[in-house]
Amino acid sequence: MLKFIDYKIPVITKLLSVFLFLSGCQSESARSPLPKKPNIVLIYVDDMGFGDLSMTGAYGYETPNLDKMAKEGMFFTHFYAPQAVCSASRAGLLTGAYPNRVGIPGALNHTSTIGLHEDEETIASLLKKQGYATAVYGKWHLGHHPPFLPTRHGFDEFYGIPYSNDMWPYHPAGPDRFPDLPLFENEKIINPAVTPDDQTTFTVDFTNKTLDFIRRNQDQPFFVYLPHPQPHVPLFVSKKFKGKSEQGLYGDVMMEIDWSVGQINQTLEELGLAENTLVIFTSDNGPWINYGNHAGSTGGLREAKGNIFEGGQRVPALMKWDGVIPPGTVCNKITSAIDLLPTIAFIAQAPLPEKKIDGVNVFPLLKGNFEENPRNTFYYYYGENSLRAVRKGDWKLVFAHTGRTYEGFEPGKDGMPGEVDNNHAFDTELYDLRRDPGERYNLFDYHPEIVEKLEQVASVAREDLGDDLTDKPGRNRREPGRVNESR
Amino acid sequence: MLKFIDYKIPVITKLLSVFLFLSGCQSESARSPLPKKPNIVLIYVDDMGFGDLSMTGAYGYETPNLDKMAKEGMFFTHFYAPQAVCSASRAGLLTGAYPNRVGIPGALNHTSTIGLHEDEETIASLLKKQGYATAVYGKWHLGHHPPFLPTRHGFDEFYGIPYSNDMWPYHPAGPDRFPDLPLFENEKIINPAVTPDDQTTFTVDFTNKTLDFIRRNQDQPFFVYLPHPQPHVPLFVSKKFKGKSEQGLYGDVMMEIDWSVGQINQTLEELGLAENTLVIFTSDNGPWINYGNHAGSTGGLREAKGNIFEGGQRVPALMKWDGVIPPGTVCNKITSAIDLLPTIAFIAQAPLPEKKIDGVNVFPLLKGNFEENPRNTFYYYYGENSLRAVRKGDWKLVFAHTGRTYEGFEPGKDGMPGEVDNNHAFDTELYDLRRDPGERYNLFDYHPEIVEKLEQVASVAREDLGDDLTDKPGRNRREPGRVNESR
Repeated sequence: MLKFIDYKIPVITKLLSVFLFLSGCQSESARSPLPKKPNIVLIYVDDMGFGDLSMTGAYGYETPNLDKMAKEGMFFTHFYAPQAVCSASRAGLLTGAYPNRVGIPGALNHTSTIGLHEDEETIASLLKKQGYATAVYGKWHLGHHPPFLPTRHGFDEFYGIPYSNDMWPYHPAGPDRFPDLPLFENEKIINPAVTPDDQTTFTVDFTNKTLDFIRRNQDQPFFVYLPHPQPHVPLFVSKKFKGKSEQGLYGDVMMEIDWSVGQINQTLEELGLAENTLVIFTSDNGPWINYGNHAGSTGGLREAKGNIFEGGQRVPALMKWDGVIPPGTVCNKITSAIDLLPTIAFIAQAPLPEKKIDGVNVFPLLKGNFEENPRNTFYYYYGENSLRAVRKGDWKLVFAHTGRTYEGFEPGKDGMPGEVDNNHAFDTELYDLRRDPGERYNLFDYHPEIVEKLEQVASVAREDLGDDLTDKPGRNRREPGRVNESR
Repeated sequence: MLKFIDYKIPVITKLLSVFLFLSGCQSESARSPLPKKPNIVLIYVDDMGFGDLSMTGAYGYETPNLDKMAKEGMFFTHFYAPQAVCSASRAGLLTGAYPNRVGIPGALNHTSTIGLHEDEETIASLLKKQGYATAVYGKWHLGHHPPFLPTRHGFDEFYGIPYSNDMWPYHPAGPDRFPDLPLFENEKIINPAVTPDDQTTFTVDFTNKTLDFIRRNQDQPFFVYLPHPQPHVPLFVSKKFKGKSEQGLYGDVMMEIDWSVGQINQTLEELGLAENTLVIFTSDNGPWINYGNHAGSTGGLREAKGNIFEGGQRVPALMKWDGVIPPGTVCNKITSAIDLLPTIAFIAQAPLPEKKIDGVNVFPLLKGNFEENPRNTFYYYYGENSLRAVRKGDWKLVFAHTGRTYEGFEPGKDGMPGEVDNNHAFDTELYDLRRDPGERYNLFDYHPEIVEKLEQVASVAREDLGDDLTDKPGRNRREPGRVNESR
């Protein structure tokens, strides 16, 4: 098939082309006195579903800047969040490891005494060692105690909130469940009690901080991480976008996120940095669909946030890098946010972390070399350490487990959640994701030979990482960081 | 939102812009001695599902030429086949009417004594009156008796098969069910018995005929309709593509269709016609998923071919017209193949058919003017005249009916079909397609006010077109053409 695309890199010349690519990047940054390493901009949105971009079928609003990013870059259609819940997903993103390997489950909150261990290396700490300026603006969610903050994990700058934007006294589903939500600058709390008014400007604020950082650091390599707290509930949007979508508040919020992406790409172009910057856009997990009109869409995939079916874990991903990523291409290979660390390390010529990780370098895919297939398997872990499903190629085997289902309940409305059943008993199921990405046709009874192959994949995971469902301890899990008392 | 896209056409200047567009088109065709009307290329593939392009999540093969068409044109994400089965869908496509309005149900075969009535106007007959050269290469399926053939419906040329490629003696599911399959040139049978070898070159043959027609007619306006018989079973592919996909034969076939699209766009560019040609690509209905590895994918949408759930009826659509359609844009407005006739008529300045049609002119959407919403409702008819569902905006109401389900059966393999239940009793169901495009969360019990609104939409359809499910005769249905005896 690659006969039809002009960016083919035959396997035999791959090493050469990688060399040429790196040289090319250096010559393009002639404005800098020394050869420059590529910049990285990583936009991670919260609870946005697979179906929430115009190009994946969103209805009632448009996302022209994200569509433009697809036109000018690469769209990944089989891209997985590391785990289908907030803190775990971010742990995987930043460490390149399955979240359970580094001991971060679920969604941390103000009572949590754990966080990302200070011995873990992150994208930021690797790049900082390579001379990058680093910053994060938005939602952290990997521990709010000092040892776990971004500034202890390789980020020069942090401005944002320590955990989710619903962990505050104004939670519509129940006041007094949470104390005040603080706003941090680096390690200092600069606003002890975020108000609803404050939240309305968060998307703009974090975008402007990002733009300012890019401008300030344009003459050196930089890594900026923009984990928008939206479109997680409670939804907030600035006046400029309020009421702008036909769909309602969720559409307004998505339009503002789209605006944010447009601002970043436009600024990079204006500064002449688009050919030396890899911009990545993706989501931490699927939509929280029991919030009804305040939730996103899986685009038809099964179940949603907090669930190992595709609707919980498959998210859209876009990457743009002018002159490197062939424009308007689509990558259907299995990829995950845990692959970003090794890929970025390769691009920045940074050594990989000393501790074991799970991500693989997918740079050949970014070059449009789809004959490569760096990752062909994925483990769907959930919670502390439950291996609930595995995928290899077309096939996904779901193990019998107790988990969340959204099916059969009235959805919530206007910020109030609808019910879910968190203790639904799922049976062992086998799906052909090529033919049946919606996981509607359980083929477990018909393909024992495929079940056996996938059981072997699971055995490798259980041996290495363990699995609570089968009482396997695993060999190579690490502990999270811990403090003695709740803050 | 249109603030962010540079091709905004404010509503107040729409008429002016349409005038300017038409003038623009004329001035661009300076190579012709007289102002030229735009050419139309319409590629209609068979049983390709919503999930069968790289950009909609296809796995195991890539479709770079279709992705390129999206990059250079517009992708429609809420685009409906006129009905979820072959002949009916084509009747709607070519007449701009719901298929039941013109009396064409299901899939005609060698025993059928009906066909598209000769009094019906088609895209071809309208354009022929405007001086267009017209041709169809591929599968007709609107009646195989002489009064119904393409040459009686405005096409100067026809080369292809009269009905589906599985209606022949080699049908894997049962030999002797069908007589020989003839190949037509205009009204003559030039090959009385298509062989498997013949079928292997059909995609290439029909593509080459199309390319030849474009070259021959490049100095006058033309309309060429390319209804590929593939990826309908039995699957056939030329030697060049055999074994080329990782997925198997279905992927090979999709790769060859993608090649075909690439050839057409490349030829138009080489001839300098890309700025004066609207190229349209879509499918006649969803995938026939009980064929398992020989079937496509709905991308997660519910059910499939022959069914009024989204998997049967929502299909990807791409349109490209350099200089007119803004590149890399996505249209999420509800649209349908029945809208192509009035849109093309507008573009060609042709009068609409005298008889009532259902399509609307969606040209404002092609210009990227998404503030327009020419169609906000859709009727999901099936069979002779059963109104099984209606959509308005976000919401879809499914009426209690007996129909096909694919759920609960082992899929077929290697050309043999798996079972389906064609008599499943579906209940009344209400879906929010914005939040739930997969039609998993029935909200009928929670929104009586929305059910009532959609019942009003259905009443309009029943009054006009009738509905067998509620014993409404309708006022404005027309009869198909009929002959007295089977051929």
